[in-house]
Amino acid sequence: MKEKIKVGYIGLGGRGLNVLQENFIKMEDVEIKYLCDVLESRMQLAVELFEKDGLPIPITTTCSDDIMNDPEVDAVVIMTGWNTHIDLAKKSMLAGKYTAIEVGCAYDLQECFDLIDIYEQTKSPLMMLENCCYGRNEMMALRLVKEGIFGEIVHCRGGYRHYLPSEDLFPERAYNHYRAHEYVNRNCEQYPTHELGPICKCLNINRGNRLMKLTSTASKSRALKDYVTRYLPEDSEFQNVEFKQGDIVNTIITCANGETILLTLDTTLPIPYYSRDFTVRGTKGCFEEDRFTVFLEGQTEDFLLYPGMKADEVFNKKQEKDFALYDHPLWAEYVKTEMRGGHGGFDWLVCRAFVESVKRGIETPIDAYDTVTLMAIAPLSEMSIQKGGMPVSIPDFTRGKWIRREPPLQTKYSLDEIVTDPDTPI
Amino acid sequence: MKEKIKVGYIGLGGRGLNVLQENFIKMEDVEIKYLCDVLESRMQLAVELFEKDGLPIPITTTCSDDIMNDPEVDAVVIMTGWNTHIDLAKKSMLAGKYTAIEVGCAYDLQECFDLIDIYEQTKSPLMMLENCCYGRNEMMALRLVKEGIFGEIVHCRGGYRHYLPSEDLFPERAYNHYRAHEYVNRNCEQYPTHELGPICKCLNINRGNRLMKLTSTASKSRALKDYVTRYLPEDSEFQNVEFKQGDIVNTIITCANGETILLTLDTTLPIPYYSRDFTVRGTKGCFEEDRFTVFLEGQTEDFLLYPGMKADEVFNKKQEKDFALYDHPLWAEYVKTEMRGGHGGFDWLVCRAFVESVKRGIETPIDAYDTVTLMAIAPLSEMSIQKGGMPVSIPDFTRGKWIRREPPLQTKYSLDEIVTDPDTPI
Repeated sequence: MKEKIKVGYIGLGGRGLNVLQENFIKMEDVEIKYLCDVLESRMQLAVELFEKDGLPIPITTTCSDDIMNDPEVDAVVIMTGWNTHIDLAKKSMLAGKYTAIEVGCAYDLQECFDLIDIYEQTKSPLMMLENCCYGRNEMMALRLVKEGIFGEIVHCRGGYRHYLPSEDLFPERAYNHYRAHEYVNRNCEQYPTHELGPICKCLNINRGNRLMKLTSTASKSRALKDYVTRYLPEDSEFQNVEFKQGDIVNTIITCANGETILLTLDTTLPIPYYSRDFTVRGTKGCFEEDRFTVFLEGQTEDFLLYPGMKADEVFNKKQEKDFALYDHPLWAEYVKTEMRGGHGGFDWLVCRAFVESVKRGIETPIDAYDTVTLMAIAPLSEMSIQKGGMPVSIPDFTRGKWIRREPPLQTKYSLDEIVTDPDTPI
Repeated sequence: MKEKIKVGYIGLGGRGLNVLQENFIKMEDVEIKYLCDVLESRMQLAVELFEKDGLPIPITTTCSDDIMNDPEVDAVVIMTGWNTHIDLAKKSMLAGKYTAIEVGCAYDLQECFDLIDIYEQTKSPLMMLENCCYGRNEMMALRLVKEGIFGEIVHCRGGYRHYLPSEDLFPERAYNHYRAHEYVNRNCEQYPTHELGPICKCLNINRGNRLMKLTSTASKSRALKDYVTRYLPEDSEFQNVEFKQGDIVNTIITCANGETILLTLDTTLPIPYYSRDFTVRGTKGCFEEDRFTVFLEGQTEDFLLYPGMKADEVFNKKQEKDFALYDHPLWAEYVKTEMRGGHGGFDWLVCRAFVESVKRGIETPIDAYDTVTLMAIAPLSEMSIQKGGMPVSIPDFTRGKWIRREPPLQTKYSLDEIVTDPDTPI
């Protein structure tokens, strides 16, 4: 077990800089040996963070090979845009590094197979840093599923329902953002991982269950053109552009064990953002993020006390009661200590999960198979939409191993089993 | 214009008796000339209602032909189970009667074509009494759509999310109910009309737009077998029965004008019932029954005041504010008068809409094309599920007339235009 690990950190855009500042830079068992970005100016911003905290200044480089070629580097954290994750991840795994990538999908199935080929050849762990897998609601639901409180799980649902045009969709609105170009050129479920990551863990995907097929249907594309016309400068590169991305994309996945999963991409029509609609439905109860968090069969009193719908005190009271009863041990411990990092503390947990695996030299709780399963949704939904909603088979990236894969060595960050381990600090 | 109409009323089960008692029997411009049911005992219960109110006692008959053959009868109201709607509707239309049917789907597409053939041959109006088309929320949304407040409509959503096993699914729980047998034998979107009816009106279906295709996916079926084992008597006919109906069915419809519609059947897994998730999404705003009723682009203040989620006072305050601003004129008038009938008053409105059309001798606001469009969803979703989620074409029951159909003569009950008419009492 390593006391301290050396990390090469690639990608210092908005998200990359934030995750560095809020998480990795604060970890005493992590040494950021390298900072890498194509822009010197972004590396300078990062260096200033280390100077401010009086920390040793990492080596800065615009060439990721410097990191891959350094045998001292234990792990590579890839925080670049979606469009460069895969090539960097391949290099990193081929160099034998633990590899973490920020969320995002592949463009093509072959990229997913390539990652699996390299993983099976090198055994270099690959982990998508899917922070919502460590959300408090998501982990509470996971605990209730594992303990059988919901009965047999039959259906799950989630949606990325976040109105982006006024936030970080267009470069005019956010630092050098590439996302708008994805919306110009593609029409698919581009961003499913925040819902599907936690859902896959509730359904034991790649360990006794798998995603079998999906159908995907996109609405017409109207909102972005309308927004650009009304709100972006006349000289914006997006004026008079036709966006291919439908405003709403619904995708339905069927699993090997008969469960269905509904995913919704909902990012261009005006709507308040306050949930990912995370929903787990079983024969004895359910979790619904939006309405009543936990609901158990026959639980009328709760339902009368709290009609089950959010709204400040009422909902928070219900949620606090549920946390008191059903909080996942990791979160129960976490809230007793200082919550850290961004996004209500779950960025910190997913980064710690990765670091703990590197220190122990064990598999990551979200592994290479889980990662490519999530990454494959975009190209698969694109195929289904292109074919007018035809069902598309989801490849078995485990090549049959899903039927009887043993869970890896477990830590308190495990998403397969509930492990309590007071000796590992959060 | 008729002062008073003569009605033959068929079907006196739970729903039929209720709609009679709460609505038609209270209408001074309606004479119930016939009561018809296969069971004398049910007709007796109905007769007692007339006796109690000192009203003339209708003729009772177990043979619907007595009604069809009476030239004095203006209209036939069919409140029997789904499984007998269509044969009775055919008879009634062939007899030249205005025909109303309770909600429910067809079993087979041919039944829908038969109804249209008979309609086009006889011109006898056929109206599904889809009460949710006259719900206050639904009509408020319809008004906002018609006035363009939501911009261009891109997507709609709704679900019948009503946990039935402990209510009226099993005969053990409800009067002689046939519904459980539908769940034993079929696997499809069996009950879409409460959401799809109002959505079709928001999207001008069959008048400039139409439903083009759908994909339907069912989860495994677990909840009913589990419920029967745990809660029904050991001698129940449903013990050891395999139910074909999947617990959750998601159906995605694509419209000729590019809108998508998501429908969810959610009736067997434990969940509180308080909404049909009626949702209309446009480029400038949306309606969401569950979360914030009306939300308009840039409306941050509202969002802060009322996080947009139901919960007694908070949500009701928001909803009252929205009603004050956007109430449909029919409802604005209705709430000033006494609200009548069941289901928060909208049973009354849909029955009045039918009666007004009969009195005036004009087309019904939900017409034969609208009715069969709704009825066709069950067999179409069944086909898609049978084919593993393949897209299925939705027939154009108007045979091209949808492209340029003129709206019928409008009344205040119209769902195509907003008509105010103080001279017609509610």
